[in-house]
Amino acid sequence: MEFDLIDLIRRHTAQSRDDVRMGIGDDAAVLAVPPGQELAVAIDTLVEGVHFPPGTAPADIGWKALAVNLSDLAAMGASPAWALLALTLPSPDPVFIEGFAEGFAQLAQPYRLALIGGDTTRGPMTISMAVHGFVAPGKALLRAGACVGDAVLVTGTLGDAAAGLQLLQRGGPVDESDARYRFLAERLNRPTPRLASGMALRERATSCIDVSDGLLADLGHICAASDVAAEIESVLLPRSPALLSLFDETTARDFALSGGDDYELCFTVPMARVAEVQADLARLGCGATRIGRIVEGSGVRVRDVDGQWLESTRQGWDHFAA
Amino acid sequence: MEFDLIDLIRRHTAQSRDDVRMGIGDDAAVLAVPPGQELAVAIDTLVEGVHFPPGTAPADIGWKALAVNLSDLAAMGASPAWALLALTLPSPDPVFIEGFAEGFAQLAQPYRLALIGGDTTRGPMTISMAVHGFVAPGKALLRAGACVGDAVLVTGTLGDAAAGLQLLQRGGPVDESDARYRFLAERLNRPTPRLASGMALRERATSCIDVSDGLLADLGHICAASDVAAEIESVLLPRSPALLSLFDETTARDFALSGGDDYELCFTVPMARVAEVQADLARLGCGATRIGRIVEGSGVRVRDVDGQWLESTRQGWDHFAA
Repeated sequence: MEFDLIDLIRRHTAQSRDDVRMGIGDDAAVLAVPPGQELAVAIDTLVEGVHFPPGTAPADIGWKALAVNLSDLAAMGASPAWALLALTLPSPDPVFIEGFAEGFAQLAQPYRLALIGGDTTRGPMTISMAVHGFVAPGKALLRAGACVGDAVLVTGTLGDAAAGLQLLQRGGPVDESDARYRFLAERLNRPTPRLASGMALRERATSCIDVSDGLLADLGHICAASDVAAEIESVLLPRSPALLSLFDETTARDFALSGGDDYELCFTVPMARVAEVQADLARLGCGATRIGRIVEGSGVRVRDVDGQWLESTRQGWDHFAA
Repeated sequence: MEFDLIDLIRRHTAQSRDDVRMGIGDDAAVLAVPPGQELAVAIDTLVEGVHFPPGTAPADIGWKALAVNLSDLAAMGASPAWALLALTLPSPDPVFIEGFAEGFAQLAQPYRLALIGGDTTRGPMTISMAVHGFVAPGKALLRAGACVGDAVLVTGTLGDAAAGLQLLQRGGPVDESDARYRFLAERLNRPTPRLASGMALRERATSCIDVSDGLLADLGHICAASDVAAEIESVLLPRSPALLSLFDETTARDFALSGGDDYELCFTVPMARVAEVQADLARLGCGATRIGRIVEGSGVRVRDVDGQWLESTRQGWDHFAA
């Protein structure tokens, strides 16, 4: 079923780019990387029932499949260019494909991102996407590079996607006409890759990662790659009004620390540049909040509102049993 | 489970390449396309039970997942460089991964192809791979370009993979110590992407495609893209001794015409260059056989041994009911 479905998606998502010499329709795409640019490449898979609940709208799946990949490019400071799609479906369902292509195109079009190739196969629903972007040589943002004394910042707000997922799974009691519910569901289903912020951080952030697995896990990757530790103040964690009004303080804190799927950027900058970076990211719409600092050592520590260090428990985060 | 499994695969398949600025271990890989080269990119998915039978050896799956992708690069005349892997498995099975990585590496190493990124997720077994290769600007082999009067050639032999699949599915009676059986099973499980042949065909073939869906379907794509027709002589179809000794003439012919998964190249060259191209491809080991010619019109016609035209039937190919 390769040809029809990919062609259907292509018609929804057509983008003409001079750097695409041959797009969909031959054995491979042929592409020209602009002179003086390097290529940033990432691949991510969404599996139904694992990465999105059964019943998720096809347009949300199309958006999210692209968004989680573009978030990887954002974390590198790369500008997006091309995508490849490997779509496995139980049956060739044109209604699903129409919706999927529509959601994909809504996110792709503002970036002039072109779908350059794909493969559709029959099987349990699985969506793999690979994205390609450009970055000047040596300018990519890496996980390694955080220095002792740097500030730790995050874009946007944290914990919303985890809250949205819990509301969805809880089912019944939530009122879908409630704007707070719609906001959290949108944060789960339609994450915004922070591409403009990532590009603005080039040559300013000393390290960067996107928050896909949860703040503590992802900041932990920065610390491991940079051979440093981080101290976070839970009182500084940016959280949305919707999250804070629908969940108690402890739950909201734990979602912000450990919830995945927010796709915000977590990054480090020298203390002297914090104000300048915050001003620029505020102009880009998402803002950035300072949540802690880089220190010597390893791992990530969290100080709670009362000044006590938190430790991980099965349910979430708790004060050290002293 | 992303980090451990991809790291395990990476250790099996480590290739140091100067053009990989950042490989596995950050949010995206960072790559440098050599100056003056364009990028050829393809993606393909294998699903258990659809593209390989349950019970296929993990090393064969690792080989084939890469081979079907490299075959797309071969059909473009590109030289391979990098691969991305999206691996979905029901559980993180180290024995499967070890075998998969071993088969992948056996095919990757001679080409110094580097695994530059990946994503492992939990779900029904699905393997998507994206490969990247280089080709000089304007030199990629395309499906469009076949001219009236050109000869149609194929590398290697046709129908072996379909025969191997039928023997596997038939089960019982086949003697696995029989070298003919082993040959056909190997053609199914360990196809050889014709990369050297593809590169040798640059600036000589007027069109090219790899035979993944069957000769008639894939040559049909050349004809559609080139706005021409093709006439094939069934007596000229290259078939292996194993195929001819285990199946009757009609079945062997039908496998060669319609069987998929052979991953040979089908291409067109001006008649005056046939001998030169055949001599070069013979030196590369796989050889090339002239099987027909390009004529005006549309579609692919097949003339049987007795001079009569064949038509498609539900069972295979038959003489026109005149």
